Amino acid sequence: MTHYRHVLAAVDFSEATDPVAGRALDLARRYEAELTFLHVLEYVPPLDLGYEPVVAPDWLPDEQELLAAARARLEELAGRLGAREAHLRAEWGHPRSDVVRLAEEAGADLIVIGSHGRRGLTRLLGSTADAVLHSARCDVLAVRIG
Amino acid sequence: MTHYRHVLAAVDFSEATDPVAGRALDLARRYEAELTFLHVLEYVPPLDLGYEPVVAPDWLPDEQELLAAARARLEELAGRLGAREAHLRAEWGHPRSDVVRLAEEAGADLIVIGSHGRRGLTRLLGSTADAVLHSARCDVLAVRIG
Repeated sequence: MTHYRHVLAAVDFSEATDPVAGRALDLARRYEAELTFLHVLEYVPPLDLGYEPVVAPDWLPDEQELLAAARARLEELAGRLGAREAHLRAEWGHPRSDVVRLAEEAGADLIVIGSHGRRGLTRLLGSTADAVLHSARCDVLAVRIG
Repeated sequence: MTHYRHVLAAVDFSEATDPVAGRALDLARRYEAELTFLHVLEYVPPLDLGYEPVVAPDWLPDEQELLAAARARLEELAGRLGAREAHLRAEWGHPRSDVVRLAEEAGADLIVIGSHGRRGLTRLLGSTADAVLHSARCDVLAVRIG
């Protein structure tokens, strides 16, 4: 059995963010491992409730602005937790598949992610934690939230 | 965020046993936490392929003997890993539900379990790791096997 060398926290800026990032930081320090805070921004197309678009194109937020805002939130998180060593990464994508892809690219051997258990829609559709657990080729720590 | 106080490894005596128990031991030592190795023996009724029972009642292994054999295997595992501090527990039950119940009874705040990913029958039915992830009220570390 090897020690963990790179711990990646998948943060979604929900109430899971601090427990997930904090646990990843704690583990990375105990294993003297690299640390990454990753946020995958999911593109949600504007709802089209009729024949005409509800949201006019010039109302849509700029993709680069959103990415910059996510990076600023990751920097704020790292500052708040005192995690100066953390690599920060924000990318557009689908969290269910791209967390694992980006973790592999980063060389992570432990993914830390929040888990809300199976309730509501996730009972039927499965959660991001489920999807990561099933497709990751490395260990996955599900941090229980609520 | 609190430190883990009690790490429980759910071992099934498959090829996952050493990675799962070894990781739990490693984490318990890093957190100075209690450690439990748990094995849940699942009762599998003998296959009845016709009108007559295939296995005569006096061929069935004794339940107490099987439990004692499981405990002996846990002792052998703890000895092999040098995990003298581990509490050893073997119980009859259904792994999908009783791992979580017994972990709660033990006061575990981290369950370590093997995960084979989603393939074959587990793609349809879900794995023990899935069930534990969904029902545990504590953190779950899925150790990737194979």
